[in-house]
Amino acid sequence: MSQIPKSLSPTTRVLMGPGPSPTAPSVYEALSKPTLGHLDPEFLVVMDEVREMQRAVMGTENELTMPMSGTGSAGMETCLVNLIQPGDKVLVGVNGVFGTRMVDVARRAGAIVTEAQSEWGRALDPELLREAADGKQHHLVCVVHAETSTGVLQEVAPVREVADELGAMFLLDCVTSVGGLRVSLDEWGVDAAYSGTQKCLGCPPGLSPVSFSARAHAALDARTEAVQSWYLDLSMIANYWGSERAYHHTAPINMIYGLHEALRLVLEEGIDEREARHRLHAGALVAGLEAMGLSPRVPEAERLPPLTAVSVPDGVDDAAVRAHLLDHHNLEIGGGLGPMKGNTWRIGLMGAGACRENVDLCLRALHDAMTAQGSAPRSDGVEAAQAVYAG
Amino acid sequence: MSQIPKSLSPTTRVLMGPGPSPTAPSVYEALSKPTLGHLDPEFLVVMDEVREMQRAVMGTENELTMPMSGTGSAGMETCLVNLIQPGDKVLVGVNGVFGTRMVDVARRAGAIVTEAQSEWGRALDPELLREAADGKQHHLVCVVHAETSTGVLQEVAPVREVADELGAMFLLDCVTSVGGLRVSLDEWGVDAAYSGTQKCLGCPPGLSPVSFSARAHAALDARTEAVQSWYLDLSMIANYWGSERAYHHTAPINMIYGLHEALRLVLEEGIDEREARHRLHAGALVAGLEAMGLSPRVPEAERLPPLTAVSVPDGVDDAAVRAHLLDHHNLEIGGGLGPMKGNTWRIGLMGAGACRENVDLCLRALHDAMTAQGSAPRSDGVEAAQAVYAG
Repeated sequence: MSQIPKSLSPTTRVLMGPGPSPTAPSVYEALSKPTLGHLDPEFLVVMDEVREMQRAVMGTENELTMPMSGTGSAGMETCLVNLIQPGDKVLVGVNGVFGTRMVDVARRAGAIVTEAQSEWGRALDPELLREAADGKQHHLVCVVHAETSTGVLQEVAPVREVADELGAMFLLDCVTSVGGLRVSLDEWGVDAAYSGTQKCLGCPPGLSPVSFSARAHAALDARTEAVQSWYLDLSMIANYWGSERAYHHTAPINMIYGLHEALRLVLEEGIDEREARHRLHAGALVAGLEAMGLSPRVPEAERLPPLTAVSVPDGVDDAAVRAHLLDHHNLEIGGGLGPMKGNTWRIGLMGAGACRENVDLCLRALHDAMTAQGSAPRSDGVEAAQAVYAG
Repeated sequence: MSQIPKSLSPTTRVLMGPGPSPTAPSVYEALSKPTLGHLDPEFLVVMDEVREMQRAVMGTENELTMPMSGTGSAGMETCLVNLIQPGDKVLVGVNGVFGTRMVDVARRAGAIVTEAQSEWGRALDPELLREAADGKQHHLVCVVHAETSTGVLQEVAPVREVADELGAMFLLDCVTSVGGLRVSLDEWGVDAAYSGTQKCLGCPPGLSPVSFSARAHAALDARTEAVQSWYLDLSMIANYWGSERAYHHTAPINMIYGLHEALRLVLEEGIDEREARHRLHAGALVAGLEAMGLSPRVPEAERLPPLTAVSVPDGVDDAAVRAHLLDHHNLEIGGGLGPMKGNTWRIGLMGAGACRENVDLCLRALHDAMTAQGSAPRSDGVEAAQAVYAG
């Protein structure tokens, strides 16, 4: 080629979008530790520690618990293709991008999918699932615990009840909850769940922690057809992560080092302490935004602390504001998706990024950016946030 | 959990197995550079540079060229699920683990697969492909360029001829050739190819560089059924890596930094120079092994320089020798797979690992380990290797 690019020197951004989130220094360090072979006895210990910590962080004792070698969407596909055989009836709650995606993935796996469509930016009323199911037995019920596309947190227990009524297994998308909120898969009766490293776990993107209950594992063992994806086939992957250590694919060693350190940080802090921290800073952010005159998109009881969705005020140019934040403050926040595109900002306070410094920066920078666009907010919101911190 | 594990401090191994291979210091550095958002304008430049460098290293101008967010096997699955619709006739050359794997993956994608079985440890005679095809039109012909499981290098042009006779597209597994040997997809008429980062590219595992020709791209566009994998659906992934920049899944940012640096190092060294280096050190290794009394498994003309397969002498305990190498010399070499399990060692000289220091270490350590097992070789082979270096 004509000219070889230079080595990278990426700008240090403050990542307050929907993910990737800020990475802690010790996680960066872990990523660049010496690569071990994927069957090295030392690496097998690392794998066991990762599984044990992942169980603790996901609130489960499921044997079949490990990170998949792909991003969160690979985790979603893993759960669906391993649980679904062609013709299975699957009920999906859809109130954002990730419910929509589950429908698409489940159909590609041959499922007969029923969608329970619900308003974006609101939690899903379990009654809608009941109505959509129309009393028919189902194989699987799927909902999103933490809708990253809208900033909504879903209450889990009532959905589990619906699944029980339908004789169904229960799949939960926990991409933006694991590591930021207490997730209790066993207590909640979740049969399959997946997450991503780049949200509240605070590790760069690249792995998807997945967990299957004993019931889901038994369903996997009872399949009559091969899982359609070889790469994501848990029956083989379990043999590598389990005591057989059978080679399947070469594990992404250094990413697993990063996840190991990220899980350590969650457990060292404590899950309840971590949830409290995410809630505290989200509360301060929302208070500040409201003091600026901005409106949260999600009713208070349904808000997802790690991700705050807020309406773009009329007359304000969404993209221009975000470009200003990036160019003048090295600050990334997210735009909206689907029906929220152009009218919603998504502000993430995830992992190491859930801190007062980021809340202050975001409020001041947003004030500056809107002012530069000729739509000065009525205050910079910092005082209102301070009031929250002062209790 | 009862006790939180400590931060990792992995031993620095000399990686001379079938991959992962040694990682250059600047690639480790790249892995831990500040994470950018996956839609950050700065990251979009990184993506373009990676694609451009990947094209140069794979010898192609294919527009549809990018790394997939998974390891080499995800690249294999990407090529197969995007090119195959149920009922398509696929012919696969099988002379090792990875040909066997392609058969499995293609069947899961609904293909009607014909296998051209051939001896492991030997190149595939294209005549076998002709016979297996029996003159029938085929949709796709698949072979492995560099069989990591056996150490065999396949001549490509005669296979392309067979594919042409059958009216088929041509898929080539380049996992252990890209970055170590000159790969010329366009010149060779390859329609789809995949590689992995953890072999001759010298980056930790986690990404799979993939390339589709214009013809393969057109076949993708002409599909009547959705690609069965959402995660690996190139029609959507192309929209993220292309000018639309449409969000599909969150790209594994830091792994892409690592690949960026690894590709840079290949191009800075020069592809022909890099191939010459891989050939030089493999030649020295083989001379040393032969002087020790060990026998290469593959005839000279069919050997894959980055990976040397050698027979375990009668009476020598394969696993005990490899454990000795690891425990006493921090040296990893690979065992055999399939029919070669227990009777073959696989010694990798890949990327930064293709160097005189590693050849010498391997010969001396193998001499020590075999001696410790009571099977002292007739020399340590170092002198014979030196003779190769002396020209």
